[in-house]
Amino acid sequence: MNSRISGSIRIVGAGLLGTSIGLALTKNGVDVIISDSVPSAESLAISYGAGRAEASGDLPMLVVVCVPPELTSEIVIEELRKNPQAIVTDVASVKKQILDSLEHSGADLSRYVGSHPMAGRERSGAIAGRADLFIGRPWVISPTSSSESAAITQVENLAIELGAAPVKVTADEHDRAVALVSHLPQVVASLTAAQLIGAVPEDVALAGQGIRDTIRIASSDPELWVQILTANSTEVLGLLEKLDRNLDQLIHAMRDVTSESGQTALRALLENGNLGAATLPGKHGAKATEYAVVTVIVDDKPGELARLLFEVGDIGVNLEELKLEHSPSNQIGLAELFVLPSAAEKLSAELIIREWRLVS
Amino acid sequence: MNSRISGSIRIVGAGLLGTSIGLALTKNGVDVIISDSVPSAESLAISYGAGRAEASGDLPMLVVVCVPPELTSEIVIEELRKNPQAIVTDVASVKKQILDSLEHSGADLSRYVGSHPMAGRERSGAIAGRADLFIGRPWVISPTSSSESAAITQVENLAIELGAAPVKVTADEHDRAVALVSHLPQVVASLTAAQLIGAVPEDVALAGQGIRDTIRIASSDPELWVQILTANSTEVLGLLEKLDRNLDQLIHAMRDVTSESGQTALRALLENGNLGAATLPGKHGAKATEYAVVTVIVDDKPGELARLLFEVGDIGVNLEELKLEHSPSNQIGLAELFVLPSAAEKLSAELIIREWRLVS
Repeated sequence: MNSRISGSIRIVGAGLLGTSIGLALTKNGVDVIISDSVPSAESLAISYGAGRAEASGDLPMLVVVCVPPELTSEIVIEELRKNPQAIVTDVASVKKQILDSLEHSGADLSRYVGSHPMAGRERSGAIAGRADLFIGRPWVISPTSSSESAAITQVENLAIELGAAPVKVTADEHDRAVALVSHLPQVVASLTAAQLIGAVPEDVALAGQGIRDTIRIASSDPELWVQILTANSTEVLGLLEKLDRNLDQLIHAMRDVTSESGQTALRALLENGNLGAATLPGKHGAKATEYAVVTVIVDDKPGELARLLFEVGDIGVNLEELKLEHSPSNQIGLAELFVLPSAAEKLSAELIIREWRLVS
Repeated sequence: MNSRISGSIRIVGAGLLGTSIGLALTKNGVDVIISDSVPSAESLAISYGAGRAEASGDLPMLVVVCVPPELTSEIVIEELRKNPQAIVTDVASVKKQILDSLEHSGADLSRYVGSHPMAGRERSGAIAGRADLFIGRPWVISPTSSSESAAITQVENLAIELGAAPVKVTADEHDRAVALVSHLPQVVASLTAAQLIGAVPEDVALAGQGIRDTIRIASSDPELWVQILTANSTEVLGLLEKLDRNLDQLIHAMRDVTSESGQTALRALLENGNLGAATLPGKHGAKATEYAVVTVIVDDKPGELARLLFEVGDIGVNLEELKLEHSPSNQIGLAELFVLPSAAEKLSAELIIREWRLVS
């Protein structure tokens, strides 16, 4: 098997991330040693296919520390000492506090590179592990000032091997970014979900997809999140205080909602939600607004979508993303073709020539 | 066609809901008249298959008013007057204010029954319409004190015809319930999304699925939501004030997060999120379980996806829905093929024979 990874990889911690990394690498033919301080977790991950148990004489080239944030720096130090031949990385959701603690420890950090795959699930443990967890996701690489370039390359190769896109940022930049795009949404989801406690069951029975999506991550592991939020409390606090001011503005607007100023304030808050949501990049990591969308009406029968996509290829346009609005009870569907803006006009014109119906 | 609906149905308002109802009824062989005060919206809905234009001599048996909340009572009154033979219902997201306004108007409410399908999308307009929008969703039926039982039955039949589950509640109960399961999540999503405004693009580039789900509905139409929140401001305000108190508790805990009391308070808030999320019925909506997903790895080059879909058609399986996870910084993408469960095994086996790589 052709792999970017040479030699054995040691994974410490058989939770969601450790198991997922082990599953993916094992699938790619890499020799994976997976260990966990809890024997039952380790044997579950092994029987799940995430690797093998440690054996005497093992000389891993890369150690991936996948333990809870609170334990990460301690285990990284231990693994650097136990494996003098190996590069060591971790996958913790916070980076600055771990880096500080490593730097104060006096450990040799030339062989250490912090990392954080931007992938997860609201479920935890080995049985939630998935080999495809990292595909298409950003994977933060945070070298220390003393990380050797060979060590950085090796951790980048790990990310690429797992289908992720390595993104090099400092620990400070990482913690600022995840406070906004991960930690704030987590506490918002938790707080919102908590409002359902004690509700009349008949009321909750009316829940649709909106609230389900909004609070999906509220099911995440509280103990893990206490550690993450504790380690990144300064960044998160700043965001929570701003959210609190915005919530107070909303409450103020709602108390006087029939007045013109109340209406204006309420509308502005909702419009800001539109604007903020539009800043999210497409799944690729490129900005959503970088693409143009050509929407085509497609008959709902086998082969029609394939015919459309064949002709798109024939026209010579590369599809960046595709969304299909398909209704089984409908005679037509809508295919949204996301292409580079420079290609959109040509694509539309050529599709019309080929008698496709476009939605303007 | 066997249908619970007899006679013609008139839909007033060709937005997301009006068009979706029209698409579903038309597909079931019902004669649907769809009208909109904006001619281009009406003609788009008609060419989309949601019904036909009004003709002289039309005598609809049921009128479904699908206009914005602010206009609903006015149009209901007008339709009751213009169609003395018909039952009239509406689909507005708030019920109490509309009912109050109808009762004060002196209109004959024996032929009126309020309703509200608990289905929607963050996108609006006729082109977002889907015939399957209501399948498996609750559909609130709110009779007035003078609604005739035949009128109630007819609106219940409409909901059942569209695949929804009718739930009879009073206007007050409805507004209390949607404040919690729909209006609160909407403003929370909007407020959270708004925090992304002005963020460093490199930070936002790290966004994963968590924040995407949390703020998905923040893209909803602000004008519609100003009307909904205005009409239900009392119920929503009570919830926002409680959320604000919980947010203040969280901020307090985060300011002293390394103390034992800070840790305990933070853990309690996150655990409450778990408890609240667990109150939601059937976490996986009926829709999710209706389809099986076969995930295929697709090389990121023009024509590959078309080749896959051609072969899916060739295998004789109809695609119910398609999601594409595509990364330009990656050499591969993931195509998720949603098919009927009965077809999944055959599809997987045939794709493997054709040398496609499946994600297990």
